[in-house]
Amino acid sequence: MRATLMYGAGDVRVQDVPDPKLQESTDAVVRVLRSCICGSDLWPYGSMPATDSGRRIGHEFLGVVEDTGPDVSGLKGGDVVLAPFMWADNTCDFCREGLQTSCRHGGGWAANGIDGGQGEAVRVPQAQGTLVKLPVAEDSALLPSLLTLSDVFCTGHHCAVTAGVSPRTTVTVIGDGAVGLSAVLAARRLGAERIVLMGRHQDRTDLGREFGATDVVADRGDEGIEKVRELTGGDGTHKVLECVGLKPAIETAFGVVRDGGVVSRVGAPQYDQVPMDFGVFLRNVTLTGGVAPARAYIEELLPDVLDGTIEPGRVFDEAVSLDGVPDGYRAMAARQALKVLIRP
Amino acid sequence: MRATLMYGAGDVRVQDVPDPKLQESTDAVVRVLRSCICGSDLWPYGSMPATDSGRRIGHEFLGVVEDTGPDVSGLKGGDVVLAPFMWADNTCDFCREGLQTSCRHGGGWAANGIDGGQGEAVRVPQAQGTLVKLPVAEDSALLPSLLTLSDVFCTGHHCAVTAGVSPRTTVTVIGDGAVGLSAVLAARRLGAERIVLMGRHQDRTDLGREFGATDVVADRGDEGIEKVRELTGGDGTHKVLECVGLKPAIETAFGVVRDGGVVSRVGAPQYDQVPMDFGVFLRNVTLTGGVAPARAYIEELLPDVLDGTIEPGRVFDEAVSLDGVPDGYRAMAARQALKVLIRP
Repeated sequence: MRATLMYGAGDVRVQDVPDPKLQESTDAVVRVLRSCICGSDLWPYGSMPATDSGRRIGHEFLGVVEDTGPDVSGLKGGDVVLAPFMWADNTCDFCREGLQTSCRHGGGWAANGIDGGQGEAVRVPQAQGTLVKLPVAEDSALLPSLLTLSDVFCTGHHCAVTAGVSPRTTVTVIGDGAVGLSAVLAARRLGAERIVLMGRHQDRTDLGREFGATDVVADRGDEGIEKVRELTGGDGTHKVLECVGLKPAIETAFGVVRDGGVVSRVGAPQYDQVPMDFGVFLRNVTLTGGVAPARAYIEELLPDVLDGTIEPGRVFDEAVSLDGVPDGYRAMAARQALKVLIRP
Repeated sequence: MRATLMYGAGDVRVQDVPDPKLQESTDAVVRVLRSCICGSDLWPYGSMPATDSGRRIGHEFLGVVEDTGPDVSGLKGGDVVLAPFMWADNTCDFCREGLQTSCRHGGGWAANGIDGGQGEAVRVPQAQGTLVKLPVAEDSALLPSLLTLSDVFCTGHHCAVTAGVSPRTTVTVIGDGAVGLSAVLAARRLGAERIVLMGRHQDRTDLGREFGATDVVADRGDEGIEKVRELTGGDGTHKVLECVGLKPAIETAFGVVRDGGVVSRVGAPQYDQVPMDFGVFLRNVTLTGGVAPARAYIEELLPDVLDGTIEPGRVFDEAVSLDGVPDGYRAMAARQALKVLIRP
C-alpha cells in the first residue's frame, strides 16, 4: 500500500510500504476512508532532523474494517469505524477513568511498528477497545465532521471540559487554528455565552464567530491581554483555553484569566516551563489540560454530529488525495489552509 | 502598645508602636489573645534586606473585640473573634465565590498602615466581613487549635480541597512543616485512606502519622520519587499536596503524581517557573492551589475543632510571650521548633 513518511523538516513523501496484516489476536485492519493533517504534525515538519529512512506519520483516520483478529468482537468486515488518535484497550483502570491516553496497553500511531493514519490502511492494535463503529455509509457527507472526533474536536472539547466551562463561565480561547476553533465550538456547546477568541486571521476568526465566539481580539501579547481585560471589566475570564502550545500563548493565558480561574492547555507544549510564579499563586489560578483522551468523548459527541447540531468538520478548508499530502503540508505550514482533509 | 517589627534578615524586634484606633466606620479594634509565627514569615527572616524603619509582621491571630465602628454589626466589645490571614468584606463577587483572598475591598495584614498580628492589638478593616465570632472563653484550651483556622490548617485544607481529595483518592503530602502536617490532617478528614508523607524530621513525621499519614518517605529527589512510586505500584498518587514552596518540592510533586492526577501547591512559591513540559502534558496532570481563602473555610471547620474531632493546634510545639518572639523566630528558623505560639 501507499503511506506518508516524513524524512525531515519540509520533506514529506508518499511511498510504498508493506500492507498491514493482523499480527495480534486483538488487531484489526482498517482501510482508510478519510485522514487529515494535524497542527501537531507541523512541529516535526518544521524542525525534524533529516533521516535516511523516514518515519510514518498521521494519527487521525476513519475507515472500513477489512479484517479482525479472533479476539475482536463487535466489529466485522465492512463496518465503518473511527479511530481516536491514540489506541487503547478501553478496559484498564486508566481507560475506565476516561484517560485512554494513559492506557496500560495502549500507544500512539505511526510509531513502534504501528501504521500512521496518513496512508491507505492501518493495522489497529487493541481494535475492540480502540475503534468506534459509525452508523454511516462510506460516502456519507458527515465523514469530515465525524473525522474531527478522532482528534481535533475532541481536543477542543477536552480543553473546555477540563477547564470546567459551563453556562455560568466566561471563556477566552487563545489561537484561531483548527483546535482553537474547535474549542470555541465546544465551549458554546457546553453553554458558555461569552467567548472571546484571540486570533488574527480574519477568515478563521469569522468561522470562530459562526462557531460561537462573541468577541474577537486580534492583538497579541500585552495589547491582547489588555483588550480581553477591557472586555471583561478588568477581570479577565473564568476559563482560558490555550490552543497554541507556544510560550507566548501560555503567558497570555495567565494574563487574561480571572482570579480563581482555570487555564486549560491542549496545544502541544513547545516549552518546558510555565510561568506560575507568586503572582499566579496569589490569584489561585489552576493550570490543567493535556493530551485529549478522545476515546472517552466520542460516544458523547457523536449524536450531535450525526444530527447536525454541530458541524466541527467545517475546519477542513482543503482536501487532497494521498499523492497530494505533501502539498497539504505545504499549504498548512504556509497558513494557506486551516486544516487539510485527506481522501486516500 | 508593643508589636513585632522585622528590620531585615535575622533581625526581629518587639517595640512600642501607636495604639490602634478606629479609622473607618467598618473597622474594629481587637486585642490579641494568641498569635503565631508562620513558615512564610521565615522567607523574609532569611532574606530581607536591612532597613532603618522596619516593617510590621504577623498575619495569624485571634483576640477580643475592644471597639467597633458604627457600620460593624454582629460584633461587640468582649466577643472572642478569629481573623483569617487576609481581611475581606465577605460580600463582593469574589468573596461570594469563596475567594476572599481576591476580595475587591480586602488586603493583607502588616502592610499599608494595617497592623500585623504579632502584637498586642490590631485595627481590623472590614471587620464585619473579616472576623468570625468564636463561642469560647478567653482562656479556652481550644485557642491554639482555633488559631490554626486563621491560616495553617485552612491552608492545608485548601490544598486538599483544590486537589480534590476524597475517600477514592490516594495522596502524597510533600513537606513535614506545619502546613504539610495540616494537609495530612485535612486529607484524612476528607476521607483519604492512603496518605504518604514525604518528610525527614522524625518528630514531625511521627505527628504526621498521628494526623493520618499511612506511610512516611524520608528520601528526597529521585530517591524519594522512586519510594513513593514503589508504594503505589509504580503509578504515584492521585493527588499531591505540595506544602513547601521550593522548586525541588514542586519537581518532586510532578514525579509522584499519577497520570490524570492533581498537584496542589500551597507552599508560597520561591520560584517563577514550573516544569510543566510535554511529558506532564501527555500525562494530563493538573496544577492547582494557591493562597488559601481561609475565611471561606472557617465556619465549615469550626465544629470539628470545637468538638475535638480534630486537634490541628498540635502543630504548636513551643510558646512564647511577645518579648520572646525573636527567640521564636530563631527556633523556627533553626528547625528547633515546628511552629511557635505567641501569647502577647
